[in-house]
Amino acid sequence: PERFIDNVVEFAHKAEKLGKDDPRRIIHSIKVGLTISLVSLLYYFRPIYDGFGSSTMWAIITVVVVFEYSVGATLGKGFNRALATFLAGSLGLGAHHLATLAGDKGQPAILWFAIFLLASVASFARFFPGVKARYDYGVLIFILTFCLVSISGYQEAEILELAHKRVSTILIGCLTCVIMSIFIFPVWAGHDFHKLIACNIEKQADFLQGFGELYFGTKGDADMPWLHGYKSVLNSKTAEEAMANFARWEPPHGKFRFGHPWKQYLKIGAMTRECAYRLEALSNGITSEMKEPSEFMKIITLSCMEISVESSKALQEASSAIKKMTYPFTISTHIMNAKTAADDLHTALETITLENSNILEDVMPAASVISLLFEIIECTENIAE
Amino acid sequence: PERFIDNVVEFAHKAEKLGKDDPRRIIHSIKVGLTISLVSLLYYFRPIYDGFGSSTMWAIITVVVVFEYSVGATLGKGFNRALATFLAGSLGLGAHHLATLAGDKGQPAILWFAIFLLASVASFARFFPGVKARYDYGVLIFILTFCLVSISGYQEAEILELAHKRVSTILIGCLTCVIMSIFIFPVWAGHDFHKLIACNIEKQADFLQGFGELYFGTKGDADMPWLHGYKSVLNSKTAEEAMANFARWEPPHGKFRFGHPWKQYLKIGAMTRECAYRLEALSNGITSEMKEPSEFMKIITLSCMEISVESSKALQEASSAIKKMTYPFTISTHIMNAKTAADDLHTALETITLENSNILEDVMPAASVISLLFEIIECTENIAE
Repeated sequence: PERFIDNVVEFAHKAEKLGKDDPRRIIHSIKVGLTISLVSLLYYFRPIYDGFGSSTMWAIITVVVVFEYSVGATLGKGFNRALATFLAGSLGLGAHHLATLAGDKGQPAILWFAIFLLASVASFARFFPGVKARYDYGVLIFILTFCLVSISGYQEAEILELAHKRVSTILIGCLTCVIMSIFIFPVWAGHDFHKLIACNIEKQADFLQGFGELYFGTKGDADMPWLHGYKSVLNSKTAEEAMANFARWEPPHGKFRFGHPWKQYLKIGAMTRECAYRLEALSNGITSEMKEPSEFMKIITLSCMEISVESSKALQEASSAIKKMTYPFTISTHIMNAKTAADDLHTALETITLENSNILEDVMPAASVISLLFEIIECTENIAE
Repeated sequence: PERFIDNVVEFAHKAEKLGKDDPRRIIHSIKVGLTISLVSLLYYFRPIYDGFGSSTMWAIITVVVVFEYSVGATLGKGFNRALATFLAGSLGLGAHHLATLAGDKGQPAILWFAIFLLASVASFARFFPGVKARYDYGVLIFILTFCLVSISGYQEAEILELAHKRVSTILIGCLTCVIMSIFIFPVWAGHDFHKLIACNIEKQADFLQGFGELYFGTKGDADMPWLHGYKSVLNSKTAEEAMANFARWEPPHGKFRFGHPWKQYLKIGAMTRECAYRLEALSNGITSEMKEPSEFMKIITLSCMEISVESSKALQEASSAIKKMTYPFTISTHIMNAKTAADDLHTALETITLENSNILEDVMPAASVISLLFEIIECTENIAE
């Protein structure tokens, strides 16, 4: 029993942490509960229930399945569901009508073949990357509705009425979801995406800012949070693509006008990742044991720290420019400073002789990352509004 | 009209390519079509249809939603669906029974509140990473079934019978899916996962093998396929995790016994990715313009190429060991060779003086990647069966 209590306590802590990390999660959960109970009211009003009959349940099914965390995801799913239901419903009715023409014996065979063919083709369509990314759910619903509508006709007389009821209740469900998600504490995927991109750049700026001091032993220890922040950027591709997808479904809101360039965000994200790969290489140098600064180290320390700090400032600038959606005016100054420092380093290196190759390992990462930072910063400059 | 024809032709080419890349996709599509039409037969037999009534459609819904590409995914979804339906069905009946005790006026209020509470709590549960990864679909179905069962009772008399029918048809759907996916041309996620891990290592071996020759200008141009193969490894994390998840659901099959160490695969995958980050840094060196080989280059060329080739051989060995599930006996020889070459390089570097710092940039990547390769290879060694 003690272990059980421990588990419960641990679970409660986890739940608390989840809620604290992002209170919108709690709000979202309550929103889902509210929407479902709202739609379930349809069951309580006799006239409505008498009208829709058992099709009322489709409203609830739709709400449970369509309601997602962000507005974009909900809209995307709702749109997919509504369109697919409508299309497949019409097609199913058509197939049913055609099949009836074939007489009592031909009808089941034709229907059966139509279902087989359509399900196979539609399943194959789900393998197309473009379909998979945006319409996967729609195709699923398409198969589902087509099968249900066309085959129900075999046993039930009022197939038209049934299809009509079902489409209506599904539309009611979709609309309720969309309205609830847009008007009550909306969670905009676009907003989150925007923030994520800016944060990812900021994490790299944090790393670069601390890196110089830590690496050249001025101060700091190897367990700071900024040291590992960039690691989450390495694997951010899938998350970014999903968010861009959702963001594209969203209507204009806040600072985001219609046709906001989400694709540019993906490009910035890709460049940020490129930069993170370099930081990963840099951070590998840190974990090796600290040595006494050699003659050579002393020569390069200043330039390297300058490069690192100025790059950091430039990235910081880019990040806050994205956040505030302004043009980063001072960013070029920082880039110029970093470039000058890099030139200084080059001249310094050309004039000295090296007596120990190990030291080289210390210098090179910083030098090689610089060229990359240039690329990234320049690109960011182009895009920032 | 011409553009339309162009589009159709392009589309056909795409479809053909999808099918050729992995013919199992076509088989899968046909399997889905078959399974759905198989289940739809339930509609055609009067006695069965009379028994289940409109609940028959749940069998079709289940098949459409549960049938996934790989066996693991299908099993996972089927298990989630069956368990969640059963649990939520029982709970819904319980809630309905409790609510009836409260009398005609209390009943709707209690049901309404129960739905709201359960939907909110369950929605919040979906935010737990552990739940999200394996039971997301189950929780969704849990909410859905609970709402439908508890609220249907408000309008329909034979709620127990309804629940019973629905559970039966859903079980029929799940079982059909599972049987079809396991026994007819099964697509094992575990098998694919195994192959993916081995291929990813092989891609890196290919890169390293070609790298030395290309980099030191012996031959080759910068547009070979092996040069970009490793790039897909960089973002493989999400795919690998999903596959490991599916693989865990699968029963023993072929070479994979029960309790196959899928987690080790994830570790190997992570290490492979670490290595890929290094290759990315290496490949950045390639794209810079080719120069005349300097005095220094000539000194290092041999050792570097030796390191690169021997590491490549070791990785190749590891990859084929994973593929064949044997112990890589000769791998340590290659690692030793690589280490010796690295030592030679170190000694060579210590005895010479450098007159141009740019050259350093050429050397360092190879030297720094070596230590990483060691780690990876050693770990792979430990795990290979």
